Amino acid sequence: MRLGILGYGNIGRSLELAAAAASDVEIVGVFTRRDISAVNVRSSVFSVQELDEYVDYIDVLAVCYGSSTDLPIWTPLLTERFNTVDTYDNHQCIKAHKERVHTAAVTTGHTSMISLGWDPGLLSLIRLYLAAFVPSATVNTFWGKGVSQGHTEALLGIKGVIRAIEYTEPSTDAITLASLISHPLKDTERHRRICYVVADPADHIRIREEILSMENYFSGYDTEVHFIDEDDFIMYHRTRSHRGRIYANGFSGVYRENKTSAMFDLELSSNPDMTAQVLLSGARAVHYLHNQDRYGAYTVYDIPPNVFLRTMEKKQGSYL
Amino acid sequence: MRLGILGYGNIGRSLELAAAAASDVEIVGVFTRRDISAVNVRSSVFSVQELDEYVDYIDVLAVCYGSSTDLPIWTPLLTERFNTVDTYDNHQCIKAHKERVHTAAVTTGHTSMISLGWDPGLLSLIRLYLAAFVPSATVNTFWGKGVSQGHTEALLGIKGVIRAIEYTEPSTDAITLASLISHPLKDTERHRRICYVVADPADHIRIREEILSMENYFSGYDTEVHFIDEDDFIMYHRTRSHRGRIYANGFSGVYRENKTSAMFDLELSSNPDMTAQVLLSGARAVHYLHNQDRYGAYTVYDIPPNVFLRTMEKKQGSYL
Repeated sequence: MRLGILGYGNIGRSLELAAAAASDVEIVGVFTRRDISAVNVRSSVFSVQELDEYVDYIDVLAVCYGSSTDLPIWTPLLTERFNTVDTYDNHQCIKAHKERVHTAAVTTGHTSMISLGWDPGLLSLIRLYLAAFVPSATVNTFWGKGVSQGHTEALLGIKGVIRAIEYTEPSTDAITLASLISHPLKDTERHRRICYVVADPADHIRIREEILSMENYFSGYDTEVHFIDEDDFIMYHRTRSHRGRIYANGFSGVYRENKTSAMFDLELSSNPDMTAQVLLSGARAVHYLHNQDRYGAYTVYDIPPNVFLRTMEKKQGSYL
Repeated sequence: MRLGILGYGNIGRSLELAAAAASDVEIVGVFTRRDISAVNVRSSVFSVQELDEYVDYIDVLAVCYGSSTDLPIWTPLLTERFNTVDTYDNHQCIKAHKERVHTAAVTTGHTSMISLGWDPGLLSLIRLYLAAFVPSATVNTFWGKGVSQGHTEALLGIKGVIRAIEYTEPSTDAITLASLISHPLKDTERHRRICYVVADPADHIRIREEILSMENYFSGYDTEVHFIDEDDFIMYHRTRSHRGRIYANGFSGVYRENKTSAMFDLELSSNPDMTAQVLLSGARAVHYLHNQDRYGAYTVYDIPPNVFLRTMEKKQGSYL
């Protein structure tokens, strides 16, 4: 599979590493909006303006731009020319994003997988199967403590923000509740959101208000906004670790006397590295489906698991 | 969906309860090989000989017979007349079983899902996605401590065995190893198998030998066989609890400096109740696929997750 990488932020960098380590992937190049002479890339680097010249040499293009503002525009547009994968992570808007990408894909004969990563992605799959197979259970997801790339991108999209990072932290009480009983918890009850922002002091009041009122990202959450100086930011906010946990507790039997408890725990020292691995698996699936003339935009919910089995670099066994 | 239940052992009983609690399922009846006057059933009970008369009234037939000897014969045979689901659990032979059921299904226009349950089934899916998305990891599964229905059926299939139960127990050392590092462990290293059998003392030596040499089930494992009397068996071996855990540890980054750790833990106070829920979800998927003229035999690997989403009794959200 010949892979193009568009964007060289956290995910683009991690994807380049993951693809370079995979024997079944050839990196055509990294395409960037930045000055290419200033970008320190392991493989070849090109300006985004050159992308169109590589249309016949790229089997799948990974769109590694920011989720909140870039992907809704870029992924549909690029899917008119390329098979694509992206990491669009605004859970509430995935359906609308998929529809736009799907239209571009089917009208031009391309294949795309959107919203790849560990959540949405791996954790979405586990939530769905637990809901189907333990129907009496409430499925609760907890993120963190860790940096949310989607929320960080959302902060960076605000005018005047120079640097920013968002930490998502689960509420300890909510985790205890979810591990013991079948109780539905709102996301706003399950998590706190802690933002560190570097910006001109003249903008602080407006930026804080824009953050606190941002729908789907910060509005309704217990959100903290801390303005710090650039040196402290560089010193103390380098971590890319993250964690995701899912709890489901159900019951069965005549008197509901039997309990079914499921727990999934994913701990990452590099969130972008994990996201990139799922993106790469998705790219393999896209390549496989496109070779079978299956055009359209898909999420992990649309793909039979055996497509991932068939397109794996190395199989350890049948897994079944 | 009009559901037929064939067999009234542990899984048949649990399925009847699960189906009775589901608003979208109508139980046509329980079909049994036993004397129907001696079977205490909640819904209607019929002799297996009457099954053919109900061919037009059953949308999906759940074959709740023993996995080791019954299902390989009955599921292919019944799939010539019915849409079917089963719980065939001999991991090494699922492919061969699927081929036989598939032939029956495609030549007669039926749909079947085989090998449903929590393992194979839910845990198979988690193993596959972890292998695809954390390719550097070794995926290790641990069962127990708990009763394996498949292994218990295997014991009961031996001539002269009056009562029997098998407990699968993980090795503590192997769990520690799997939770810390990426190390492949054979199933025979991961588990011990403890069997309690009621039989005529004259048969003990032969039965022990047959157990210890049974391929795929007991041969190669640290297996204990205890012969006990019937009163002790009834008194001390009623539990149906079980547990399944999956560990995967991978790495990423330039110097493999980043760690990705995943753990899934499923605890069941009733193994057959959980198996029955997955069987019921599979039956809904079969009904849906058959209505779309999709004929053949499938495992959970062949079904896009969104089929389970669409056929769920109650959705709590989008899960994505």
